[in-house]
Amino acid sequence: MSDPLTGHIETVLERHLPPPVPPLSVIHEAMRYAVLGGGKRFRPRLAYASAHLIGISRDLADFPAVAVEFIHAFSLIHDDLPAMDNDDYRRGRPSCHRAFGEAIAILAGDALQARAFAVLNAIPGTLADPAAIVEATRFFSELCGSTGLIGGQTLDLDPLHQPRTLEELTDMHERKTGALIRAAVLLPCLLTPHRMPDTQSRLDRMAQALGLAFQIRDDILDATADPETLGRTPGGDASRGRATFVTLLGLDDARRRLAATLEECRSTLAGFGERAGMLETLVGNLSAESIPA
Amino acid sequence: MSDPLTGHIETVLERHLPPPVPPLSVIHEAMRYAVLGGGKRFRPRLAYASAHLIGISRDLADFPAVAVEFIHAFSLIHDDLPAMDNDDYRRGRPSCHRAFGEAIAILAGDALQARAFAVLNAIPGTLADPAAIVEATRFFSELCGSTGLIGGQTLDLDPLHQPRTLEELTDMHERKTGALIRAAVLLPCLLTPHRMPDTQSRLDRMAQALGLAFQIRDDILDATADPETLGRTPGGDASRGRATFVTLLGLDDARRRLAATLEECRSTLAGFGERAGMLETLVGNLSAESIPA
Repeated sequence: MSDPLTGHIETVLERHLPPPVPPLSVIHEAMRYAVLGGGKRFRPRLAYASAHLIGISRDLADFPAVAVEFIHAFSLIHDDLPAMDNDDYRRGRPSCHRAFGEAIAILAGDALQARAFAVLNAIPGTLADPAAIVEATRFFSELCGSTGLIGGQTLDLDPLHQPRTLEELTDMHERKTGALIRAAVLLPCLLTPHRMPDTQSRLDRMAQALGLAFQIRDDILDATADPETLGRTPGGDASRGRATFVTLLGLDDARRRLAATLEECRSTLAGFGERAGMLETLVGNLSAESIPA
Repeated sequence: MSDPLTGHIETVLERHLPPPVPPLSVIHEAMRYAVLGGGKRFRPRLAYASAHLIGISRDLADFPAVAVEFIHAFSLIHDDLPAMDNDDYRRGRPSCHRAFGEAIAILAGDALQARAFAVLNAIPGTLADPAAIVEATRFFSELCGSTGLIGGQTLDLDPLHQPRTLEELTDMHERKTGALIRAAVLLPCLLTPHRMPDTQSRLDRMAQALGLAFQIRDDILDATADPETLGRTPGGDASRGRATFVTLLGLDDARRRLAATLEECRSTLAGFGERAGMLETLVGNLSAESIPA
């Protein structure tokens, strides 16, 4: 997914990370390692694409783009911990706790969460109305919290509430993966000076379908890709006895479900015309055809 | 420290915690266990006392009071983890990870951090100006982050940057303990409709001295109290070879330093007259005379 945004995203992520200088070198190096260690930047790209559709400036979109990626990096650090998924590798490199130790990894995750809220509240008054920033922060913190992202991770780990049906699996992923994808798409809407309730509700529908597509695709990749392409140990969820869209639907039906969900995204975007181009590209990138056979 | 505020604080803390209902019972129970498990509520009390001095309503003060206590509870959960201080007891009960397991404890801490920002941004527009909420959130997130609270915890754990001198120990505690005490005192200032730069800078000086006094007192307690009074394993820091105000100064000088620091708090508050009464009581509660001989 290399395109003109790639360099820009790395630059703004780096700009909002504290410098790795003493006495706080270690924690700041761990934060930088986790954030700047590659990744497809899917969530920042979504934020810029949504900003483009709405017509807000890239200068303003930088803030939600960075905030969602910091939360994403924080959630990956904590998910990889020995007490959670116990993953030694992430994006083809040692996971944060393997590189920095468990204590620093926990704290680096904690600090990235705090930093995400700092970034969202550092938007200059010339770019967004304070009332909009407050609403965006409240919405974002709910999506990150115990009924959103963190709730999803809890359901994923909780032996008493393991999802067994498609409905339960979808609910879990609406929180675990979907919440942050919704945040990436909707934060730019919430930060605009003029409310656009219709646009916002259509984008929300699109974001929810996109979050589901993203997870179905991830499960297909996990079941089919080789470790080098994946950058992590494949088959992890299935081998832990956890339900995935592939274990519940089978590979062929999972591919069909992915295609149908992406089609739902496309039809929701259709009415927006050319302004939806960037979002349509991101939707296209998730198609089943893009998965190595 | 039982007084008319005690019941009120427990009520508002409980009100801002999500209900422990399925499928998210476990994480919400862990959050409630960590927050509602007693504690002196020193930081919420500071927020109400500061609000009283400034003249803002208790309805408004509820929000920063709850937010600082949620961050405090989050930091205690993570500090107690096996990878950190590995403490089995907190406030005379099993620590959160002993009661709920490590994974849920990590996630409950994460969720309490998100919830703290949600609470601060749930202040109704009738009580505070959105611009003030944005500034308060930015300030708060910086104090919680890698240069504040979490930075202090990092220094406390980092074998390469262990504080060896009084200056380094003070710097570490200005972050680890001081940051949240500053937040409790200053958030009410930042949320007032009219800026009071002089009051704010005097309260900031007082808060910084108070944070130091709090930590010196904690080190004295840790060196002298019995486990039952303390509610946790005493002598923990010193027995881990970590510097404390008692190991660096000796017990007598630590008591003298505590008295001098509290005197600094009192003299900074003196000019405020009767409005400072609640803060003066909290300062008095930290006096060396209050420590069991």
